[in-house]
Amino acid sequence: MEKIILDCDPGHDDAIAILLAAGSPAVELLAITTVAGNQTLEKVTRNALAVCTVAGIRVPVSRGADRPLVEPQRVAEDIHGDSGLDGPVLPQPAFEVDPRHAVDLIADTILAHEPGTVTLVATGPLTNVALAMRVHPEIIDRVKRVVVMGGAYTRGNATPAAEFNIAVDPEAAEDVFRGSWDVTMVGLDLTHQALATDELNERVRTIGGPVSRFVLDVWEFFGSTYHEVFGFAHPPIHDACCVAAVIDPAVFNTAKADVHVELRGTWTRGMTVVDFVDVPAMRHGTGSEYRVDVALQLDHGRFADLVVEAVAQLTSAPSPGRSWG
Amino acid sequence: MEKIILDCDPGHDDAIAILLAAGSPAVELLAITTVAGNQTLEKVTRNALAVCTVAGIRVPVSRGADRPLVEPQRVAEDIHGDSGLDGPVLPQPAFEVDPRHAVDLIADTILAHEPGTVTLVATGPLTNVALAMRVHPEIIDRVKRVVVMGGAYTRGNATPAAEFNIAVDPEAAEDVFRGSWDVTMVGLDLTHQALATDELNERVRTIGGPVSRFVLDVWEFFGSTYHEVFGFAHPPIHDACCVAAVIDPAVFNTAKADVHVELRGTWTRGMTVVDFVDVPAMRHGTGSEYRVDVALQLDHGRFADLVVEAVAQLTSAPSPGRSWG
Amino acid sequence: MEKIILDCDPGHDDAIAILLAAGSPAVELLAITTVAGNQTLEKVTRNALAVCTVAGIRVPVSRGADRPLVEPQRVAEDIHGDSGLDGPVLPQPAFEVDPRHAVDLIADTILAHEPGTVTLVATGPLTNVALAMRVHPEIIDRVKRVVVMGGAYTRGNATPAAEFNIAVDPEAAEDVFRGSWDVTMVGLDLTHQALATDELNERVRTIGGPVSRFVLDVWEFFGSTYHEVFGFAHPPIHDACCVAAVIDPAVFNTAKADVHVELRGTWTRGMTVVDFVDVPAMRHGTGSEYRVDVALQLDHGRFADLVVEAVAQLTSAPSPGRSWG
Amino acid sequence: MEKIILDCDPGHDDAIAILLAAGSPAVELLAITTVAGNQTLEKVTRNALAVCTVAGIRVPVSRGADRPLVEPQRVAEDIHGDSGLDGPVLPQPAFEVDPRHAVDLIADTILAHEPGTVTLVATGPLTNVALAMRVHPEIIDRVKRVVVMGGAYTRGNATPAAEFNIAVDPEAAEDVFRGSWDVTMVGLDLTHQALATDELNERVRTIGGPVSRFVLDVWEFFGSTYHEVFGFAHPPIHDACCVAAVIDPAVFNTAKADVHVELRGTWTRGMTVVDFVDVPAMRHGTGSEYRVDVALQLDHGRFADLVVEAVAQLTSAPSPGRSWG
Repeated sequence: MEKIILDCDPGHDDAIAILLAAGSPAVELLAITTVAGNQTLEKVTRNALAVCTVAGIRVPVSRGADRPLVEPQRVAEDIHGDSGLDGPVLPQPAFEVDPRHAVDLIADTILAHEPGTVTLVATGPLTNVALAMRVHPEIIDRVKRVVVMGGAYTRGNATPAAEFNIAVDPEAAEDVFRGSWDVTMVGLDLTHQALATDELNERVRTIGGPVSRFVLDVWEFFGSTYHEVFGFAHPPIHDACCVAAVIDPAVFNTAKADVHVELRGTWTRGMTVVDFVDVPAMRHGTGSEYRVDVALQLDHGRFADLVVEAVAQLTSAPSPGRSWG
Repeated sequence: MEKIILDCDPGHDDAIAILLAAGSPAVELLAITTVAGNQTLEKVTRNALAVCTVAGIRVPVSRGADRPLVEPQRVAEDIHGDSGLDGPVLPQPAFEVDPRHAVDLIADTILAHEPGTVTLVATGPLTNVALAMRVHPEIIDRVKRVVVMGGAYTRGNATPAAEFNIAVDPEAAEDVFRGSWDVTMVGLDLTHQALATDELNERVRTIGGPVSRFVLDVWEFFGSTYHEVFGFAHPPIHDACCVAAVIDPAVFNTAKADVHVELRGTWTRGMTVVDFVDVPAMRHGTGSEYRVDVALQLDHGRFADLVVEAVAQLTSAPSPGRSWG
Repeated sequence: MEKIILDCDPGHDDAIAILLAAGSPAVELLAITTVAGNQTLEKVTRNALAVCTVAGIRVPVSRGADRPLVEPQRVAEDIHGDSGLDGPVLPQPAFEVDPRHAVDLIADTILAHEPGTVTLVATGPLTNVALAMRVHPEIIDRVKRVVVMGGAYTRGNATPAAEFNIAVDPEAAEDVFRGSWDVTMVGLDLTHQALATDELNERVRTIGGPVSRFVLDVWEFFGSTYHEVFGFAHPPIHDACCVAAVIDPAVFNTAKADVHVELRGTWTRGMTVVDFVDVPAMRHGTGSEYRVDVALQLDHGRFADLVVEAVAQLTSAPSPGRSWG
Repeated sequence: MEKIILDCDPGHDDAIAILLAAGSPAVELLAITTVAGNQTLEKVTRNALAVCTVAGIRVPVSRGADRPLVEPQRVAEDIHGDSGLDGPVLPQPAFEVDPRHAVDLIADTILAHEPGTVTLVATGPLTNVALAMRVHPEIIDRVKRVVVMGGAYTRGNATPAAEFNIAVDPEAAEDVFRGSWDVTMVGLDLTHQALATDELNERVRTIGGPVSRFVLDVWEFFGSTYHEVFGFAHPPIHDACCVAAVIDPAVFNTAKADVHVELRGTWTRGMTVVDFVDVPAMRHGTGSEYRVDVALQLDHGRFADLVVEAVAQLTSAPSPGRSWG
């Protein structure tokens, strides 16, 4: 069982990431921490609790940073709606947040397990992870690896150059990519392959029950905004790709790269500048010492199977504490 | 007949651009100006004269800027060799450079023709064009349009973010893109489709004669460095695409975009940040007033036909002054 | 009694700031927190404990950040020596650090007192303060004010443009200056007036005893490096000016200003750009909403009196727990 | 006789610089070139002709750049008024501009004299000088030296960090400071000492005649805007200091410095970052190879004498072609 801490800002695709982590038999979801991003900290925290409530998930959930390290706060209301998770009916949370700050819950959780056993999956702006690195630097050597949804090696979505999670807190991202730990970058080039296709919708519909219903409602709203704003035919389930990679490393392939976050550009702030060490056509020798695994091609079939299995699992084997649906 | 001034830094693909402009019956090549880029000003000027000599081309050729507006000079010796045009045997130039500075030859030529009739094709760093804009601002309203080989909307080649011509002189590029004239940007996304394939090689070989021989030698050397440095199977004939578009606008399609040259980034200086106004998936509303036509998909068949026709034309109908071959 | 938390990186002038805060009857020193700056976190923390031990001071001392938010770490060994407090003989610390992280000790201390009663004096890089703002944002409205040794409105010392404390962690400084709390900036323009003159040396010498001896040794070493590096005749006691201003606001006058920390410049990163709102010759309307009190002219007589009184007080009335000297 | 080309943007203090150059027996004014700065190119060119007409000066006057290399144009209407030279009555120009562009007049003039004999005095934005360096690089080794009014080593006037001439065209300034010629920087720290005091006003008044009247009117208007905007008691005659230094090098002392123009900062763009190589308290080792002479202290008495002598000379010995007054 791969142990995961999920730092997120739900968010439609974060919601699917939570369900995938909780529903997969291959991973143990140790904790959820929230960070301002797709919506305000208050809203994304409530959403995290609501998603857990829908699916009967009971893990510690802590609030983290309510704004980036340096940047003014911004949210993605055009994509995720006023609540940050518009679309599905959200239940009253069945439990309270853990009183610890996210950076403390992250550190406590990592330090409570054997070194090299806990994977930190971060699917929002990287503010919490960067703060945890500074306030609890001892975790850096203890983490197994950090899997980040963020960045791009061709084009961004927040700007032509920058992806949203990185653009929201570029300094935090630079800290995380430069940290002396293993980082996997799951950027837009990968996640735009992770579409909630008609076939995937149909497979989830067939499962039936409240979790299935919730997932379909999430995709319906997310699909509508992605269609309107970006012209996509189906919504990309960005964040779930990170969890999928922990469950099954073969869900996508990767290449080693130097990743620099552009902190200064007028038009490029928050861009991930990706120099592929081993790919001649994309190798430039920008000269750094660190190496990030950058996701390249998704095996959509494997990915879809993982999502379907997790929804089925959460539907057939609800937790005892589950009270909604 | 479309009238062209070609500002270039030959350079292998510049050489093909010269031949295409001189050999096509649809365009009249009025002047060639040179700029430091692929190699030093001295070398690229000698190469321009040599290419003209090979093909019996007699037009005014002037030297321009020997370094960028602000950046320190750099050249692309790894791609174009020590001479800037390694590979073919280069003849002694059969004529001298025009004594005027490039910015004066550009202005004199534009002002000597009817307003709106001269297209400025720029296939090197944009230093000369920017200097001409400042020293002779009256040309801005007189030019028909400016067709630039430079930039990219996904990834660069000088760095992960920036294409060589723009990276060499970002300030000049920003001036040109921001000028109140029509600009067509022919970036790497387009020119990497313009490969000198085996079939195109064979068609040129069939023509025979010294121009054919020269073109094949150019592609052989350029193919070897592109293979070694970038892993390409065939070399891209970047600069010729700009001339091709003047001959036949259908050789590629375009989309309107705001193009900002990043002047300040640590890792992105010289990047062309392209915001496609009419393409939902690539539209970001960065908010500028100006519009550039950005080349998207090449019709390789049309492109190849134009190159073959020009080589054939130069082979069958040499100029009277031609003395080499 | 003004309540103070002192966040520092001792450091010669930090040492005097500690003694001034502990020795003055007008202030209560609640806690000391340390941050990497003049030397590594380990060294400055040991120095803080040693200074307390010399003077019989017993307050909680906590370690904070061991490096800046984003910048690579750097220290001022040329100025403060290998230990960070070269010169005086340093005793073995008589007590241990508080186990809490600096950001937690700062927050706990502020929250344990009435709102608006605790002044945060920061005399090192502002990493700890910025981290505390993000991890414990509830302190921002509770602090009375923040008094910062850092910046300059004419010239810097780390670079021609930037002062050391701000240059070491520009992002943290920007956060602190932009925070919704009252900030007093005590920059080089002020602190270069706070010289340990011959007269001040003599007054301290007259007191006698180990604290007096320690202070003189501090100034002797600091004077030698300031003479060698900067050509100063006497060393500036930068950090003590902040504590002096809490004891006696008349020790210097101030003017309101917008202060922006330059985060992006090639040659100016870490510079405090100070726009004086009420001073015509130094007012530029850079347009921010926030206001910082910037120190202008020091009353050296008052300042010297405060230092002498504190040394005398620490000499005549040692704490019960004092074990060294 | 020191030979001078004066590149300027009159402008009140530029007007005095023209008069000083034309009226001093120690210098020969070879040419005047104009550049957009204090006002538009059209206005400052008309002003240059008008100043020459007032004082009976007949030298070639050419128009140069109508906007900076990269920056959008801006003018200093709040300081110099709508005409760029508000205050005095301006005569109809008695002669026409030279048809050559400023960069060509500069180059022609330099190349027409012995190498090392012509000093280029630049008292506006450095656009023309930078363009001349690129279009006529052969002048760089021929110029005796370049004396620039611009920059500051403490505080700016266009912004807290940047002086107007440099802020208007930072790229041009960087080119000029980095050029392989001798540069003297006469910045605000010097020119704010060059005040048109009551005593200087009185001395000029005593001379009488139209040139005296013109100078007094210039200072009256300039004094009123400097009082209103900056709170100055007397206006600084910035640009005349550069000409004064050519007439009498003892008018101010200098120190060697590395000068970098900040091109990228958010709050500091256009700042001259001055690292004094030989002044311990202002030396930082930013590591460049080039050296600029930076003006430090003005001898106001000598300066005032030069101004008075020039006005007296122009009054007593008008040129034959003089038709106004």
